[in-house]
Amino acid sequence: MNKIEKVQRWLADNNRDIALISDPKTIQYLTGFFSDPNERVLVLVVFKNKEPFLFGPALETEAIKESGWSQPVYGYLDHEDPWQMIADQIRTRQTDQTAFAIEKANLSVAWLEQAKSQFPNGDFSANLTPMIDQMRMIKTPDEIEKLKIAGKWDDFAFKTCFEAVKAGLPESRVAAEMSYALMKNGIMELSFPALIQSATHAAEPHGATSDKKIENNALVLFDLGTVWDGYISDATRTIAVGKPDAKSLDIYKVCLEAQLAAQNAAKPGITAAELDKVARDIITKAGYGEYFNHRLGHGMGMSEHEFPSIMAGNDLVLQPGMCFSIEPGIYIPDVAGVRIEDCIHITENGNEPFTHTTKELQYFG
Amino acid sequence: MNKIEKVQRWLADNNRDIALISDPKTIQYLTGFFSDPNERVLVLVVFKNKEPFLFGPALETEAIKESGWSQPVYGYLDHEDPWQMIADQIRTRQTDQTAFAIEKANLSVAWLEQAKSQFPNGDFSANLTPMIDQMRMIKTPDEIEKLKIAGKWDDFAFKTCFEAVKAGLPESRVAAEMSYALMKNGIMELSFPALIQSATHAAEPHGATSDKKIENNALVLFDLGTVWDGYISDATRTIAVGKPDAKSLDIYKVCLEAQLAAQNAAKPGITAAELDKVARDIITKAGYGEYFNHRLGHGMGMSEHEFPSIMAGNDLVLQPGMCFSIEPGIYIPDVAGVRIEDCIHITENGNEPFTHTTKELQYFG
Repeated sequence: MNKIEKVQRWLADNNRDIALISDPKTIQYLTGFFSDPNERVLVLVVFKNKEPFLFGPALETEAIKESGWSQPVYGYLDHEDPWQMIADQIRTRQTDQTAFAIEKANLSVAWLEQAKSQFPNGDFSANLTPMIDQMRMIKTPDEIEKLKIAGKWDDFAFKTCFEAVKAGLPESRVAAEMSYALMKNGIMELSFPALIQSATHAAEPHGATSDKKIENNALVLFDLGTVWDGYISDATRTIAVGKPDAKSLDIYKVCLEAQLAAQNAAKPGITAAELDKVARDIITKAGYGEYFNHRLGHGMGMSEHEFPSIMAGNDLVLQPGMCFSIEPGIYIPDVAGVRIEDCIHITENGNEPFTHTTKELQYFG
Repeated sequence: MNKIEKVQRWLADNNRDIALISDPKTIQYLTGFFSDPNERVLVLVVFKNKEPFLFGPALETEAIKESGWSQPVYGYLDHEDPWQMIADQIRTRQTDQTAFAIEKANLSVAWLEQAKSQFPNGDFSANLTPMIDQMRMIKTPDEIEKLKIAGKWDDFAFKTCFEAVKAGLPESRVAAEMSYALMKNGIMELSFPALIQSATHAAEPHGATSDKKIENNALVLFDLGTVWDGYISDATRTIAVGKPDAKSLDIYKVCLEAQLAAQNAAKPGITAAELDKVARDIITKAGYGEYFNHRLGHGMGMSEHEFPSIMAGNDLVLQPGMCFSIEPGIYIPDVAGVRIEDCIHITENGNEPFTHTTKELQYFG
């Protein structure tokens, strides 16, 4: 049963006629075709027991066909009404059954209103998001292979950064060298803007790479990711330039201990909340609990925001095929910030990381 | 009256109590703080007659304060329920008035359901999107200045591309050289992935830069944009490598004529639809109408997807401060593709482009 057939099975099981799929990542997952249509409309319509169709901007239809999509595709021009055209296509196929399932986490209120205006008696109450999230959460061997390749390029990215890093250079310059090296190898896309943050700057866990100069005798944090055939990598290393102070070295030691303990504990049977607690207890016991102000990890695959979420309160039991980050961090404002992260996939007996750059503290400069 | 006061005025005029603002770009526009929270919740709550507050992930609150936001900000941890916490903050301020306005083009159905579950008697029918779109459509002199700087960096990007381009080099390599040159100058962000497409590849208007080698005796299309302080540039040039065939040169000539005519006609008083027609008529008359399969242009500013949309059916009258692209294209599958684009701002008497790279056909190699 292929992925679209699984959606059709779900529709049948849940007494729904039609799935309106609007999340570009879901469309890529189900069809192999990706485009971010921005404010334009790109929708995959899956019927319980009829052939699906794709509907999108006219200027995408050639690319959709070239991507291997062999079922119908319909395009609209910018001045046309896409929702009326989608509805017309649905009505030519079936007129009486309008129990829809929608991606509630993605579909905007405005687009739902458009769809409802076309089907005033339609039922739009069913949410497809949880079913798609479940499907995407367990990766196939084919997906794991792509994640491994993306991981190898992330290790390459760390290598280029460590070759470039030195005190006095702007953070942004190191990012430039890394990006250039990747692009010369045909890796055109990062999974997110690289984070390269020196010294106290690293204490802002969601700060950005800046023109700030890399300080001597301080830690530098690198959070990097690449994209390979629609699948991402994401890893973080923190290294030393010169001789960081004792406090910085202590939080590094604690963070590494927490990361290794959690990575060692990640296997089938443990829950997401228990895994978070493995790392958090170590950091809390060392007195830094208040400075670890985010979850231990996030699911990843086609994006770095998938399930499972590795956090307190999530009693989900880990299973083979789940892929997620293990990334404890300790951020002490005006002192230093450390984060150490590998993404892993759960195997039958344990887990394997996608990135292999050493996590022992490395010294440069 | 500052921008948030304008939202408050709109609430008063429209008999609404509270605006729930969820589009990260709108939040940036109103507060100066930008973050893409992905699946996390970042909401600006504006009251008709009370102080607004920002609510977001705990790991963003420091950055929010540092951005200059001086009103209250509240953070949530990953395992907490953000919508309940937002609702609690609202309830501490006012208990009886729950007529909300939401950004329907941005807010997901799932988040609306979350908000509704907190305020079962709340009225969520009002749409703030059109009002925000109107505000954002007319740029202030301060915004125009940022767009001009982003435009200068786009001219720089073209220069680096033209220095690098030659037959036999992968399209992606030229993109690498451009990106590297920008990053060495501290320009870390492109407004969209650069499009560099040679020969027939340029006939896919939404294709991507590939490892395809740049052909000799063919046209090459460059669609590039940068970001400066949250404001973007976006321009397209098509150049010749070697001696392209007569057909390629003919579509270039027609496309340039259409672009120049439209840019010359863009001034206060003409409608968006009329402006589209100026360019489209020239291309249609030359026999290429069917190969110009998108609107003439899109509004731009903080993103390349703003209002006004320059297309058939849009009778909006152009006014000073509107910023948009003028980008006719002719895409003949398996033959060649040409697009020429400047973004402009409407002035009192006409318009000024943000990019100044020559549009006369340039020959390289």
